[in-house]
Amino acid sequence: MRFRSLRFATISISPARPKTLLHLRRFLSSSIAARIPPPMAASEESLRQALAEKQSAVDAQAHALRALKARPGGAAQAEIDAAVEALKALKVDAGAAARRLQAALSNNGDGAAASSREAFRQAVVNTLERRLFYIPSFKIYRGVAGLYDYGPPGCAVKSNVLAFWRQHFVLEENMLEVDCPCVTPEVVLKASGHVEKFTDLMVKDEKTGTCYRADHLLKDFCKEKLEKDLTLSPEKAAELKHVIMVLDDLSAEELGAKLKEYGITAPDTKNPLSDLYPFNLMFQTSIGPSGLSPGYMRPETAQGIFVNFKDLYYYNGNKLPFAAAQIGQAFRNEISPRQGLLRVREFTLAEIEHFVDPDDKSHPKFVDVANLEFLMFPREEQLAGKSAKPMILGEAVLKEKSGVPLVAHEKFPEPREVEKLVIVPSKKELGLAFKGSQKMVVEALEAMSEKEALEMKATLESKGEMDFHVCTLGKTVSIMKKMVSISMDKKKEHQRVFTPSVIEPSFGIGRIIYCLFEHSFYTRQSKAEDEQLNVFSFPPLVAPIKCTVFPLIKTQKFDDVAKIIAKSLTAAGISHIIDITGTSIGKRYARTDEIGVPFAITVDSTTSVTIRERDSKQQIRVSIDEVASVVKEVTDGQSTWGDVMWRYPTHSAAHTEEE
Amino acid sequence: MRFRSLRFATISISPARPKTLLHLRRFLSSSIAARIPPPMAASEESLRQALAEKQSAVDAQAHALRALKARPGGAAQAEIDAAVEALKALKVDAGAAARRLQAALSNNGDGAAASSREAFRQAVVNTLERRLFYIPSFKIYRGVAGLYDYGPPGCAVKSNVLAFWRQHFVLEENMLEVDCPCVTPEVVLKASGHVEKFTDLMVKDEKTGTCYRADHLLKDFCKEKLEKDLTLSPEKAAELKHVIMVLDDLSAEELGAKLKEYGITAPDTKNPLSDLYPFNLMFQTSIGPSGLSPGYMRPETAQGIFVNFKDLYYYNGNKLPFAAAQIGQAFRNEISPRQGLLRVREFTLAEIEHFVDPDDKSHPKFVDVANLEFLMFPREEQLAGKSAKPMILGEAVLKEKSGVPLVAHEKFPEPREVEKLVIVPSKKELGLAFKGSQKMVVEALEAMSEKEALEMKATLESKGEMDFHVCTLGKTVSIMKKMVSISMDKKKEHQRVFTPSVIEPSFGIGRIIYCLFEHSFYTRQSKAEDEQLNVFSFPPLVAPIKCTVFPLIKTQKFDDVAKIIAKSLTAAGISHIIDITGTSIGKRYARTDEIGVPFAITVDSTTSVTIRERDSKQQIRVSIDEVASVVKEVTDGQSTWGDVMWRYPTHSAAHTEEE
Repeated sequence: MRFRSLRFATISISPARPKTLLHLRRFLSSSIAARIPPPMAASEESLRQALAEKQSAVDAQAHALRALKARPGGAAQAEIDAAVEALKALKVDAGAAARRLQAALSNNGDGAAASSREAFRQAVVNTLERRLFYIPSFKIYRGVAGLYDYGPPGCAVKSNVLAFWRQHFVLEENMLEVDCPCVTPEVVLKASGHVEKFTDLMVKDEKTGTCYRADHLLKDFCKEKLEKDLTLSPEKAAELKHVIMVLDDLSAEELGAKLKEYGITAPDTKNPLSDLYPFNLMFQTSIGPSGLSPGYMRPETAQGIFVNFKDLYYYNGNKLPFAAAQIGQAFRNEISPRQGLLRVREFTLAEIEHFVDPDDKSHPKFVDVANLEFLMFPREEQLAGKSAKPMILGEAVLKEKSGVPLVAHEKFPEPREVEKLVIVPSKKELGLAFKGSQKMVVEALEAMSEKEALEMKATLESKGEMDFHVCTLGKTVSIMKKMVSISMDKKKEHQRVFTPSVIEPSFGIGRIIYCLFEHSFYTRQSKAEDEQLNVFSFPPLVAPIKCTVFPLIKTQKFDDVAKIIAKSLTAAGISHIIDITGTSIGKRYARTDEIGVPFAITVDSTTSVTIRERDSKQQIRVSIDEVASVVKEVTDGQSTWGDVMWRYPTHSAAHTEEE
Repeated sequence: MRFRSLRFATISISPARPKTLLHLRRFLSSSIAARIPPPMAASEESLRQALAEKQSAVDAQAHALRALKARPGGAAQAEIDAAVEALKALKVDAGAAARRLQAALSNNGDGAAASSREAFRQAVVNTLERRLFYIPSFKIYRGVAGLYDYGPPGCAVKSNVLAFWRQHFVLEENMLEVDCPCVTPEVVLKASGHVEKFTDLMVKDEKTGTCYRADHLLKDFCKEKLEKDLTLSPEKAAELKHVIMVLDDLSAEELGAKLKEYGITAPDTKNPLSDLYPFNLMFQTSIGPSGLSPGYMRPETAQGIFVNFKDLYYYNGNKLPFAAAQIGQAFRNEISPRQGLLRVREFTLAEIEHFVDPDDKSHPKFVDVANLEFLMFPREEQLAGKSAKPMILGEAVLKEKSGVPLVAHEKFPEPREVEKLVIVPSKKELGLAFKGSQKMVVEALEAMSEKEALEMKATLESKGEMDFHVCTLGKTVSIMKKMVSISMDKKKEHQRVFTPSVIEPSFGIGRIIYCLFEHSFYTRQSKAEDEQLNVFSFPPLVAPIKCTVFPLIKTQKFDDVAKIIAKSLTAAGISHIIDITGTSIGKRYARTDEIGVPFAITVDSTTSVTIRERDSKQQIRVSIDEVASVVKEVTDGQSTWGDVMWRYPTHSAAHTEEE
């Protein structure tokens, strides 16, 4: 069973509860929208042009000077001196133009220097690895590229994101959730086209055998040329930019031709490269002990939904539209994984399939969101190298609508006769022969394709029995003629037969989490201004731990208060840790700021305590009885920190501030 | 890195909140304890003995009769008649003894007839598959044995069980959760012994090639003999029972010898069987494009915790005890999967590793649980064919304690000198050479084994440089002498070096869920007594949906009230569905009873509604404003249904009862 699937650059937004929607918009805008780079600096082309002109002026003058010097009989010294001076001035001009171009190139992207952006990323990644948000897998065995472990805080963030995803999509939209295996028999992935086409183009270093993704090499070559080669002509620069833009649309032949044209070699050794060949990205394996049933680890979770379509449609009362969702692991044997969590070999996918009637795509809740504005990135803008732009949802739908039917479907003006395969297993005979396994034999018989069934019919008629492999039993059974009736029946069809259209939003959870990490990270100076402190400004919804409890000094009475508070936090369902290490309160704040804990309770008396907010470092004083309910209010999002600041006295004792 | 691991038949119980503990105890006692069968009927042996005696009396009398008839000259007719009568009487006796034995055998187990237990299981499984709790995977492609999909209600139950597991263990006990990949390089599973020893013994049908698990064949043979062969001598019966009991402890040679001794053939074809050979249960694959890095899908999740031990120990402030947990998929390529969710090829495991100091296994919370009584099944009782028995936890720990140290460890009476490998990569040189990849090269150098490091030292000293494969980069780099210093340093060690002991509770989530399904299922007659209705009596904590809303009849005003109630249920965080199909209220109740929804709200007025409890079918009348908070009270476990029954008027209108 195959469906045409539309991959949207955006995701479907449901109206849901206003608060939740707000959360989601904040979450998405922070993790996705803000990451889309604005267009390249408009002046780059003119600067290249200016540099090229200055450079040819230099060349022309140098040529003139050489001619002057070589003049038979010799030129006047004054004339030569003047030409040298002119050449010097032109070189200064060209140097200045080169510096202006260099500056423009290194300011590319979002306006911050690319090198400082790289340094920022390195700081984020170092913090993430040091605090065990995630770490390369199997490090003690030297590791494997593209596989990562989530440590305790990373695990907590992931589990919060998934819980919120399930709440927002599955529960609030009444989606049908399924959970299917990762191990998938070949037949399923042959039908979906993955066995034949889920490939990337690969080249090998002809001497060392190291493998590279062909499009990565071409892209890296173009980017490096554009960034570092100031002598590129504006035309050549435009060509390289165009190559980057259309990279995903190049055919294998075009890609191979470009690699040859640009003389690209293996980046590490400069050895020549092999020809291109396709490499299937699925991890292959074998199911069962016989070695005869090939299988793969699923490269996406959607197939599990598609193969269950009939059952899910029935579960939904045979009505459209409905949506099914699945959260689970997917596997892609990437040629060269890179960029941390952004391109890995195993990852958690959360996928939705909205099944809709191709002739009636209306949704009862669309009116609630039609006027909302979102940042969108339509295909035409992507291909034209333009940037994302805000669009009103209702207008976008009226526009993105093509007028061309997306799928084949049939309507019969009057009932018409069709031939249909009818397989009727005899449950009585099969029950006698196979007892407890009867059900699986029945299901296997019913699942035969038309070709298989007709073959069986012929064999049973000529020989009376036939060997038949039942996969669910893992063995071959003997089917007798009396056990099954197979026929082609004529039948009148009134109903319209149609293939549902599918809208498929797909969420790579690791990518979302990584964007969240990078977007939430900042540094600030310690109070003594002697070091940079790291902070993750996670919203409470996704923070790995909501709250810490610090007894100010080591004394039994403060420890007792801390335990009472911990108990009330547990009762309120707020995750927390008590830190009773003797270290200074400033150090303890810094330590939990670095894993993004939004609130800290410091116990400095036996009647009331302070609550400190991570980003503003503001503190309020709250009685011990109230502390859990105040923290719950701000972590659940019922109140903002600003709201509770008004209700309680602020606290500014020096001893609880950063040291 | 390897740790000795103890697999406990029981799991560690933490004190936690009393309510949660109660939940857990109820949950475990329903899903595990109640499933352990009591000992076989004590009379079986004496019945076999009696039958054997009667049978030999029959044989002796038949022999005597034949002798009488063959007497030279012929015996008197009267004498022969008397002997025939005596033989008849003895045969009647033997027949009665055979029937008594047959009855005892079919009453084996928990006292209910085995066949009716099988029928019960079939009813549970049929309901589970029909309502899409779970279904065989890839059914439309004929399926694969041992792979199942969870449909919408199954998914919801699984997600509730996992959320509760995480809350109970990870959050309340401050465990360190990790989330590691399923794809695992061979080196890790070689070190853990899985590549060599994670095998089952297999035999093949010599003609068809069908594979069987050798121990399954032996067990099935013994069970069938014991159940059906009434002529077995008591000695032979005892022998077969002993074989079943020690099945897991038989060596390959013993298992093979038994198959030969009993003349066991392929069960489907009666063909002869091949010799035994080991089959590795791990799904094998290959990591990366080179085809040179074998890998496996992990057969358990524990390895991911072990390889991260050092980092987690550091995360915990270098202190023991601590516990780490992981929830994730595990994969076992079973030879012959069977029994639905109980033996599958891919499953969700939730595993905990408690790391404890072997010399100090005290736990601060043990005192809170030392006096609780649990059903336990110690190894000696299992091997002796006895049944589980209740034990006081404190006493069990004083007993299960062996007095033998579980792990090797060393104590130094005085500091002693040891040789230690020291690898110091030069970050400066490596940074210059490898820039952004420096970190991965440094980590790979530091992760070298002693042998690898000493080889590198020798090569660098003789040749000045050496090729070095960096797995995390997926390529080979050239290491120069100046980039790393390798030496064997002498060092004084004061510290005790020890291997932590490990306690490893492991939860197969699919098995727990299946037990929950089977234990929660019952049938009851419809009101008209014309059909059996299925009910899953799930506790609200795990029920797939907490509540349904039914407008009694199709009218706008009831639909509006239903929507208002749905809104307040969403706000209270209670999962629910509205059923507005026109079908009778009794049918709608039956439909949701069958998926285990604990509460149903029927809208039959615009001011108040009824709430019906699934198992008692009792109804109370509650005002529309209060309905969400009442349902929340009983689903959260703050009140029981009994509690709220007292507070609200009961409702007994005929129209809302089963029809």
